Amino acid sequence: MAGVTDLVTALLTPEKLFPAHWEVPAKLAEAMGYSLLAGGKRLRPLLVIAACEALGGSREAALPVAAAIEMVHTYSLIHDDLPAMDDDDYRRGRLTNHKVFGEATAILAGDALLTHAFYSVVQSSRAHGVPAERVLSIVEDLAEMAGPRGMVGGQTADMDGEQGLTDLDSLKYIHLHKTGDLIVFSLLAGGRIAGADERQLEALRRFGVNIGLAFQVQDDILDLVGDEGKLGKKTGSDVRQQKVTYPYFIGLEESRREVERLTGEAKDAVLDGGFSDASRLLEIAEYLMSRDH
Amino acid sequence: MAGVTDLVTALLTPEKLFPAHWEVPAKLAEAMGYSLLAGGKRLRPLLVIAACEALGGSREAALPVAAAIEMVHTYSLIHDDLPAMDDDDYRRGRLTNHKVFGEATAILAGDALLTHAFYSVVQSSRAHGVPAERVLSIVEDLAEMAGPRGMVGGQTADMDGEQGLTDLDSLKYIHLHKTGDLIVFSLLAGGRIAGADERQLEALRRFGVNIGLAFQVQDDILDLVGDEGKLGKKTGSDVRQQKVTYPYFIGLEESRREVERLTGEAKDAVLDGGFSDASRLLEIAEYLMSRDH
Repeated sequence: MAGVTDLVTALLTPEKLFPAHWEVPAKLAEAMGYSLLAGGKRLRPLLVIAACEALGGSREAALPVAAAIEMVHTYSLIHDDLPAMDDDDYRRGRLTNHKVFGEATAILAGDALLTHAFYSVVQSSRAHGVPAERVLSIVEDLAEMAGPRGMVGGQTADMDGEQGLTDLDSLKYIHLHKTGDLIVFSLLAGGRIAGADERQLEALRRFGVNIGLAFQVQDDILDLVGDEGKLGKKTGSDVRQQKVTYPYFIGLEESRREVERLTGEAKDAVLDGGFSDASRLLEIAEYLMSRDH
Repeated sequence: MAGVTDLVTALLTPEKLFPAHWEVPAKLAEAMGYSLLAGGKRLRPLLVIAACEALGGSREAALPVAAAIEMVHTYSLIHDDLPAMDDDDYRRGRLTNHKVFGEATAILAGDALLTHAFYSVVQSSRAHGVPAERVLSIVEDLAEMAGPRGMVGGQTADMDGEQGLTDLDSLKYIHLHKTGDLIVFSLLAGGRIAGADERQLEALRRFGVNIGLAFQVQDDILDLVGDEGKLGKKTGSDVRQQKVTYPYFIGLEESRREVERLTGEAKDAVLDGGFSDASRLLEIAEYLMSRDH
């Protein structure tokens, strides 16, 4: 799927981000581009396209939504890194947005990315003729899953949890919303572009909830026993920051079994979904389970 | 129009904000509600409804969009007040959001309001049957006019301008985008809900650009010569903060004539627009010109 990563990245350059006639302050465009082009797995765009293609939909039509979800993900990282939040100076080995552009511009760049994501979603209709009714459902899903009931809700719970999170259910709530909801959104959006029916959407949702949680548990495991060279960051940060994790609650071995169980559930979901080609989705589930970084 | 203000305010209570089955962290809902219910003129919702009704559209169908634009306006105030931005402790005589809930929650409450505004826009279709194609155009307009080319662009230019803004054109750019774009959006959205044609949308845009700028110039004038009791804040803050304003560039008398000229342009626009009833829009233009707070 390296081709997909390049296609999405090409849409995220400051020149491609906006219609040519728009006047956008140079500093703002630069700050947005800096974080959009800071690398990363582009997992969410990959999921949009894989879901769309699994139902026989057009990759071209899915690209504006794939770019949009990466904008939302990037905005959330910029705001999370702010001094008032996690106060991080580095991300993936580069200075964080506010360290380069200042806090005010970082806040505004995040706001601009979130807003512009919705513009990008609409372009799947404008530029590629996806029916308005489907695109409106994508807008509604994005607002629900990135907003107060979704990602921002999960982030709020996570911030509060740092002052004493006590049970596995609270941790699961955070994982499901802080990262899980955008993963589910990506799959549903890809499905909607391709014209998925209710049964297929339900299968994509089940697939997403399970790989999303598996992804997080694997993250928790890698932070304990991963290879620092491959991860590109120090391990053990959860322990040092006294963050509760899956291994903290159920142990390392049980956590590994949980990743396998969740991945199995995810695979069952897509195999039952009635897709024209589920192979790419199955590959992604497999990759997420076995990844070492 | 007091009825409209109450109708919109009723939609902005924490209980009414979200579907009943949504789980939203209590602290986040409280922080969102605190700023949404902090008073204010509700000018933008008023414009949505006035434009919709001027074309014979249904007030009910316009309400979700009226609520949405107030969420966007409120998010922008919360983020503007942050220590990294304008660093304000009070707004309309109440403590600002971050002074009550902390910076992290204030950032997240702003993010949540912006995201949820798009959810609310979609409800004009879901709950009131506005055609998907029209609502998608409203989503597109909102993303353009609140985003990097619109309000956030204007805010970025304003922050930069504080380090030495030199000409009237730059000031006009800031006014047009930082506040003007949301006013234009409100009018276009009201028009779109009622099914406005291109000529009517163009008239609403011209009306909006002109009253938006008149509104700002009047703000500049009131900051110089207004009545502190009526304004509910100290005058002269622009001079103390060395902010450039219309009176700074063209003098007080010329600024007053500019407000009259812009208001006249706005009135001409709606009179030429072919609306079924332009009287409410004319009243608003008149009120904005003659307001003393």
